[in-house]
Amino acid sequence: MQMTELLAKKRDGGALSTEEIDFMIQGYTRGEIPDYQMSAMCMAILLRGMDERETLDMTTSMMHSGETLDLSPIRGIKADKHSTGGVGDKTSLILCPMVAAAGLKIAKMSGRGLGHTGGTIDKLESFSGFSTAISEETFFRNVNDIGIAIMGQTADLVPADKKIYALRDVTGTVPSIPLIVSSIMSKKLASGADVIVLDVKCGDGAFMKTEQQAEELARGLTRIGRLAGRKCAAVITDMDQPLGTAVGNALEVREALAVLRGEERGELLELCLTLGACMMVEAGVEWSVEEAKLSLMKVIEDGSALEKLAQMVRAQGGDARAVYDPALLPQAAVTMEAVSQRGGFVSRIHAERVGLISMHLGGGRVTKESSIDLSVGLQLHKKVGDRVQPGESLAVIHAASEEKAREAAEMLLECYEFSDGPIEKPRLIKQIIR
Amino acid sequence: MQMTELLAKKRDGGALSTEEIDFMIQGYTRGEIPDYQMSAMCMAILLRGMDERETLDMTTSMMHSGETLDLSPIRGIKADKHSTGGVGDKTSLILCPMVAAAGLKIAKMSGRGLGHTGGTIDKLESFSGFSTAISEETFFRNVNDIGIAIMGQTADLVPADKKIYALRDVTGTVPSIPLIVSSIMSKKLASGADVIVLDVKCGDGAFMKTEQQAEELARGLTRIGRLAGRKCAAVITDMDQPLGTAVGNALEVREALAVLRGEERGELLELCLTLGACMMVEAGVEWSVEEAKLSLMKVIEDGSALEKLAQMVRAQGGDARAVYDPALLPQAAVTMEAVSQRGGFVSRIHAERVGLISMHLGGGRVTKESSIDLSVGLQLHKKVGDRVQPGESLAVIHAASEEKAREAAEMLLECYEFSDGPIEKPRLIKQIIR
Repeated sequence: MQMTELLAKKRDGGALSTEEIDFMIQGYTRGEIPDYQMSAMCMAILLRGMDERETLDMTTSMMHSGETLDLSPIRGIKADKHSTGGVGDKTSLILCPMVAAAGLKIAKMSGRGLGHTGGTIDKLESFSGFSTAISEETFFRNVNDIGIAIMGQTADLVPADKKIYALRDVTGTVPSIPLIVSSIMSKKLASGADVIVLDVKCGDGAFMKTEQQAEELARGLTRIGRLAGRKCAAVITDMDQPLGTAVGNALEVREALAVLRGEERGELLELCLTLGACMMVEAGVEWSVEEAKLSLMKVIEDGSALEKLAQMVRAQGGDARAVYDPALLPQAAVTMEAVSQRGGFVSRIHAERVGLISMHLGGGRVTKESSIDLSVGLQLHKKVGDRVQPGESLAVIHAASEEKAREAAEMLLECYEFSDGPIEKPRLIKQIIR
Repeated sequence: MQMTELLAKKRDGGALSTEEIDFMIQGYTRGEIPDYQMSAMCMAILLRGMDERETLDMTTSMMHSGETLDLSPIRGIKADKHSTGGVGDKTSLILCPMVAAAGLKIAKMSGRGLGHTGGTIDKLESFSGFSTAISEETFFRNVNDIGIAIMGQTADLVPADKKIYALRDVTGTVPSIPLIVSSIMSKKLASGADVIVLDVKCGDGAFMKTEQQAEELARGLTRIGRLAGRKCAAVITDMDQPLGTAVGNALEVREALAVLRGEERGELLELCLTLGACMMVEAGVEWSVEEAKLSLMKVIEDGSALEKLAQMVRAQGGDARAVYDPALLPQAAVTMEAVSQRGGFVSRIHAERVGLISMHLGGGRVTKESSIDLSVGLQLHKKVGDRVQPGESLAVIHAASEEKAREAAEMLLECYEFSDGPIEKPRLIKQIIR
């Protein structure tokens, strides 16, 4: 088999066979196929497409390019969630303890990743002493005992994706549904969960700009997951503005705690309930999404979701008092209001730019080696559709210095657009795909 | 400017600006843009296309990636020819002395190239002592004195094409009209001729399989040449079987000499007359192709075309006696007839495979360092449409040993297909594009 033949086949609109896809993925992972052939192939796939069988083959071949997790030592139904990424996305912090409190098993292996804020692991490290450097034995025992554990990535999961993604990133070949699907699903399948729920973001601050594109991706993801023998659902959510109000690690933990306490009852809660309900229904423990949401609301109201988070923090060496007393979480040296000169109705908040402010304040990671300031970030007071009076504050900035805070406040004003007339608040949840 | 932005633009079907194309071509030539980005770009260009302005920009940017030849020391109109390549193509050996005898100037800088037989330089080295290692001064003087000279490539012409072509070859991105046009025309423009005539091959043994594809390429080539300020025409010719009867270096020289002597008056002569006539008309020294062909026929009939070749051979140190006495050319140790077991009408001769026989006999170059046996090759007795009786010879093999000759004869039988009923002889010249 020759990569040049495969390139010609895909270039001319043909479908690659199972064997050809495996040859390509394993050969590239092992370094036998050079970058310049794989990048041309990614461009050909982007422009010519892949059918469902090809996408499944690519996904499973990538999944088997490295180790896979065997979650069989865990009793019960293992659930996992993936988000296509957005600014202010703290859903995992709420969703995971909530569904664990409702009886599903959460066994999460996470990397740290790059981005505007840290990943879930970084956010959880806002609890002093919390560690994800636990043994596999402890990991499995904790999930069996309390229903939830999170572990830093030790296994070499899907090396093919690391290589291919790095290449796609610099060759204009990211926006391809089959390539995105195989990238996401190979990792989710390798992580071993029985039930996978996907949060597919859509809008200006997301990869998929339109609901139609997001739906196409969501259908691709769930179909491939099901063909690979897992239970799958997806929720399409708005990313035309940051999710919730907080952007920044410890600040997002605070917002998550408020939701888990039942104090914050807005769209962020609604999203977590919906994602969790999809998990419960796919797991077969509830009949309908609406009923499942009521069950999940109970574990919020009786405090057991919050307690589940505390149990996990404690089991992994963290100071669980902060779960009940957020004042113990990292706090920034300086806070400063970002005051609007003009009034009107907020018509738009550029999510991407808000993310860059968090980055500028030191809350995100530029390279794998960067250290993160967990305390910094911002809390939005005004969201799309809200009325703003001249002189009113749009957000409060949490920064390490006055200077950084001032810069961030100025940057924030640039993120807002206003309308003279009223603006309808966008719906966060656009569609459930099952 | 970022290559990733250019990739996204072309991927989405946009047109690259003049500056963007220059950034890409010069950056890639200098090694600042990596192979994996350029290969993805080639695939995007192949699948999304390039408009005429982009193709012209790419051609001129490539042309300026290295040195260009200044032919201004030569008086008169300088003509050049390019063939898209085929088996048994000895047209340059006939065409160049013929048009030089008719008054145009031929100042050719050639490389040796890889292929089934050597290039024009190798073939001319069949004349003992002939050398293309002449100084630029001698080169210009010879062209001014006798109208024709050929020089080994000394200048670093179009390094961009060398790099891009090598990459396209291994990434399935050869068959793209804008990429082929820019590759061919950048080199022709850099070579400095005023008039460029293109022999675009079409058929099984050629790159363009159908006449429609060949016409598209021919129109692309001539338009870009004209937009770059040169006179251009193209002839679309059949490559469903080898051109003429000889394949192999000295054997092709013999066939060319027979045409120049006016003894061989078949389609090969007709093709050379047509290509030459297009040159004369484009140069403005003749009014019509038909009239120009008559003028050229005169230089065949009065012996001046043959004498022009002898002048060039002599001026470059070669034994010109062989021009008049082909027995002085290199002769193979062994000749052997390839006898057909079956009879019928020849319906097909796989040109590509015939080329491989020449290669197998030692007449072609596998790597740049390979040495070539100028004496070996084959002469076809039967061409498409010819009737063959069982036991009749299809061709004579010229080889270095009995064993090689026997192998080649067996291979040759595999190149022929037969029909029981009569087959129409294919027309060699399909279209003239002006």
